[in-house]
Amino acid sequence: MPLFGLVHMRAWASLFGQLLRSPRALCIREVHVHSQVAEAVLTSQLKPHQEKSNFIVKTPKGTRDLSPQQMVVREKILDMVVGCFKRHGAKRLDTPAFELKEMLTEKYGENSGLIYDLKDQGGELLSLRYDLTYPSSLTYLCEVPFARYLAMNKVKKMKRYHVGKVWRRESPTIVQGRYREFCQCDFDIAGHFDPMIPDAECLKIMCEILSGLQLGDFIIKVNDRRILDGMFAVCGVPESKFHAICSSIDKLDKIPWKDVRHEMVAKKGLAPEVADRIGDYVQCHGGVSLVEQMFQDPRLSQNKQALEGLRDLKLLFEYLTLFGIAEKISFDLSLARGLDYYTGVIYEAVLLQTPAQAEESFSVGSVAAGGRYDGLVGMFDPKGHKVPCVGLSIGVERIFSIVEQRMKTSGHKIRTTETQVFVATPQKNFLHERLKLIAELWDAGIKAELLYKNNPKLLTQLHYCEDMGIPLVVIIGEQEMKEGIIKLRSVASREEVAIKRENLVAEIQKRLSES
Amino acid sequence: MPLFGLVHMRAWASLFGQLLRSPRALCIREVHVHSQVAEAVLTSQLKPHQEKSNFIVKTPKGTRDLSPQQMVVREKILDMVVGCFKRHGAKRLDTPAFELKEMLTEKYGENSGLIYDLKDQGGELLSLRYDLTYPSSLTYLCEVPFARYLAMNKVKKMKRYHVGKVWRRESPTIVQGRYREFCQCDFDIAGHFDPMIPDAECLKIMCEILSGLQLGDFIIKVNDRRILDGMFAVCGVPESKFHAICSSIDKLDKIPWKDVRHEMVAKKGLAPEVADRIGDYVQCHGGVSLVEQMFQDPRLSQNKQALEGLRDLKLLFEYLTLFGIAEKISFDLSLARGLDYYTGVIYEAVLLQTPAQAEESFSVGSVAAGGRYDGLVGMFDPKGHKVPCVGLSIGVERIFSIVEQRMKTSGHKIRTTETQVFVATPQKNFLHERLKLIAELWDAGIKAELLYKNNPKLLTQLHYCEDMGIPLVVIIGEQEMKEGIIKLRSVASREEVAIKRENLVAEIQKRLSES
Repeated sequence: MPLFGLVHMRAWASLFGQLLRSPRALCIREVHVHSQVAEAVLTSQLKPHQEKSNFIVKTPKGTRDLSPQQMVVREKILDMVVGCFKRHGAKRLDTPAFELKEMLTEKYGENSGLIYDLKDQGGELLSLRYDLTYPSSLTYLCEVPFARYLAMNKVKKMKRYHVGKVWRRESPTIVQGRYREFCQCDFDIAGHFDPMIPDAECLKIMCEILSGLQLGDFIIKVNDRRILDGMFAVCGVPESKFHAICSSIDKLDKIPWKDVRHEMVAKKGLAPEVADRIGDYVQCHGGVSLVEQMFQDPRLSQNKQALEGLRDLKLLFEYLTLFGIAEKISFDLSLARGLDYYTGVIYEAVLLQTPAQAEESFSVGSVAAGGRYDGLVGMFDPKGHKVPCVGLSIGVERIFSIVEQRMKTSGHKIRTTETQVFVATPQKNFLHERLKLIAELWDAGIKAELLYKNNPKLLTQLHYCEDMGIPLVVIIGEQEMKEGIIKLRSVASREEVAIKRENLVAEIQKRLSES
Repeated sequence: MPLFGLVHMRAWASLFGQLLRSPRALCIREVHVHSQVAEAVLTSQLKPHQEKSNFIVKTPKGTRDLSPQQMVVREKILDMVVGCFKRHGAKRLDTPAFELKEMLTEKYGENSGLIYDLKDQGGELLSLRYDLTYPSSLTYLCEVPFARYLAMNKVKKMKRYHVGKVWRRESPTIVQGRYREFCQCDFDIAGHFDPMIPDAECLKIMCEILSGLQLGDFIIKVNDRRILDGMFAVCGVPESKFHAICSSIDKLDKIPWKDVRHEMVAKKGLAPEVADRIGDYVQCHGGVSLVEQMFQDPRLSQNKQALEGLRDLKLLFEYLTLFGIAEKISFDLSLARGLDYYTGVIYEAVLLQTPAQAEESFSVGSVAAGGRYDGLVGMFDPKGHKVPCVGLSIGVERIFSIVEQRMKTSGHKIRTTETQVFVATPQKNFLHERLKLIAELWDAGIKAELLYKNNPKLLTQLHYCEDMGIPLVVIIGEQEMKEGIIKLRSVASREEVAIKRENLVAEIQKRLSES
């Protein structure tokens, strides 16, 4: 199980107390275990000004450049995720990289060290966006791009997705190898609708994405904020301790019940019998039958809130069965995320096993999460009008590193260009012909390259194609010119055929459409 | 002609003097004339905490949210631009949103108010990236993500593109309607190659993109840093005045020669006869014949630097002719950009006319620019190893506003979703059937939606399809259930056909592939 996640959660909890339970706290657990933050340190001299000032050429702490190889992996994953969002009718939205700081900390002075502030250069005080949809859970007052957008534009109904970078000043001394800049993919449905239909669609989307990415077996844990609250109430947890107990319970996927129980009793001052009552519940997980069982539970069935939650969960399972994904969903009373935000159903997808080819050290865990938050938009609306919302975040950074790691292990070579045809010549003084030819290919929409040399060697040109994985070579020389033909060579089979010059584009397009 | 551009350049020049001539100063001229920076100001109450604290719900000054409509336009344009970069074999690179501030201002204390600094929260001092490839021209020491990447990773050869946001703290009091956050698209070729081949490819790329986007007629002005320097030298401009005179000359596309001459003489203290000599040159523009003419020029032909530049331009025109784009290129001795950076050929694409349907107030102008900069990477290399580079920036923000404006004027409705099929029912209590059906469509990769209601009215459902531009509707009701069929309706023609339930997915896929 993901040890790193645990370490992080602990470190965070000790730093920021109970406020840290983020509703989409995925990022908190996104650990790039293998890819160390490379900080190649070079000293450079400012030659042109003849000063001997050395300075360090590196990226800022916690950030990195993404190489063409990494960009290819990312784009494939993002295309797949965005493709799914579009399949479900979502629109794309974009918001600025920074927001007004006053919305974050004005009233509460909760000056989180995790948020990047911009320097006061006169004018507004700004902070880099911490999240696309909502905030850290530090307080309700963090940046809330989506909720702000809905309230500001009086949008009452919207299915949107957002892919973008977010920034968190995580302390690298506490959390090794975590990045401070990362990509986030959010999908949300805002509006007043009949219960559980959009909620079920969110779970369907998570299943489609995780199946589509072939990350291995996964399960989505589901619970409901109202069931959690009801459970705490009927077990006798004082309301002031809900948050603290909630964060203990959330550790159950990493440490055994007895350790969690010890923490609750010894550190958080819960009565042992209360802890035991909680224990009876939070060790339960199962399908719709567990929902039925809870309806019969003598204590829980007396709690109005819990009953509401159970009723919704029952309906949810009905819809999930129709969607054909019920077996991927586990009602799990230990799932306890985001007490600050979520008002209804909550969920979190976890990978069940280390991807087959990954190294031992590779930790898996939460890769997607979300839930219903009906109160957030209202806080940004001048009249407090509520817009119920339900949504999800895909933990793409974690998925990137799983896929990258897998590719590394498998030795799979990634093409970083999409070039289809290379224009070559075996002879000297054929640059003009090559340039004419390649322009013809470009103009026909064919992806083509040549070497930027007047007289390259044929072998150099063919090696380039092999190195870059370019499938086709067009060869032009004196003999070909005379006969009005072009040679078309397959790099893989080394077969060459002669084609009439005027048929070249058509022939290439035919070959490419077949491959 | 673009008045706004002029105003900006003047304002900038007065603020920052000669240092402001950015090599890719496109952004300086990117003016969002129509779309006023919307700052809907709402006051909100923090209900949940029962405090009466009002705060303003808005985006930071100079930034804006991008609506789904705007995102669709953007994505289409970016797909086209990126498609072209890929057609030319470029790899994608990404760099962090911020870089170390020390590289910017350490030695020179040139604290530009245009760069967003991050607050000192302990640790490194950082600034938001100002440019993807290089810097403002404030000094050589600005952020240089691409050059830094090459030097840091000892990359000697690379064809890369970069699409990303950059940020500039432009003063909104000076420059109305300009954004402080915008998208930039760069393409660059780094490496030692035979002369003018990659340079010609950059111009080909600019032509392909501008033709592809159908922005109307355009021309690409070309000049060479060495010709400019040579021209100044042979005309008798003191070297200390190169920069100042350069910036006057750059205004020739907006104001007449006599005004520029006046500025050079009256404000910049140039001798009238020197100004007149410059005037003879900078009013020249033409094709390769002008290059030939300059070879014969008694003064210019005596200058070694100018001769080198002319020789390269001649070769460039040879290649441009082979690429079939020579008629789009104008050798223009008044093109005077980026004395700080460019070491060879420079170019700038301008639209020749207001797009037919645009309003009067719409200003056109520079939409792409670039050039050769052989010295920049060496400054970041510890041993000063040079990596020659040539590249271009597409002024996508300006292109976005042209296309948005055009769509607005034409009343063209933009679809913000890609939904292909809507699942409807004319009857009550058909939610279960609808959910089963839509899951089948999603699982087959079909983009599908339904209303999140238990019992929506058929008319409401059909209206939704018309509103959203969804082409197909699948209708299921009691009768259809009995007969084992589904009705497939075309929203445009209102024709309905009955299809066997088991053939539905295949039939939809067939229809979609035909359309």
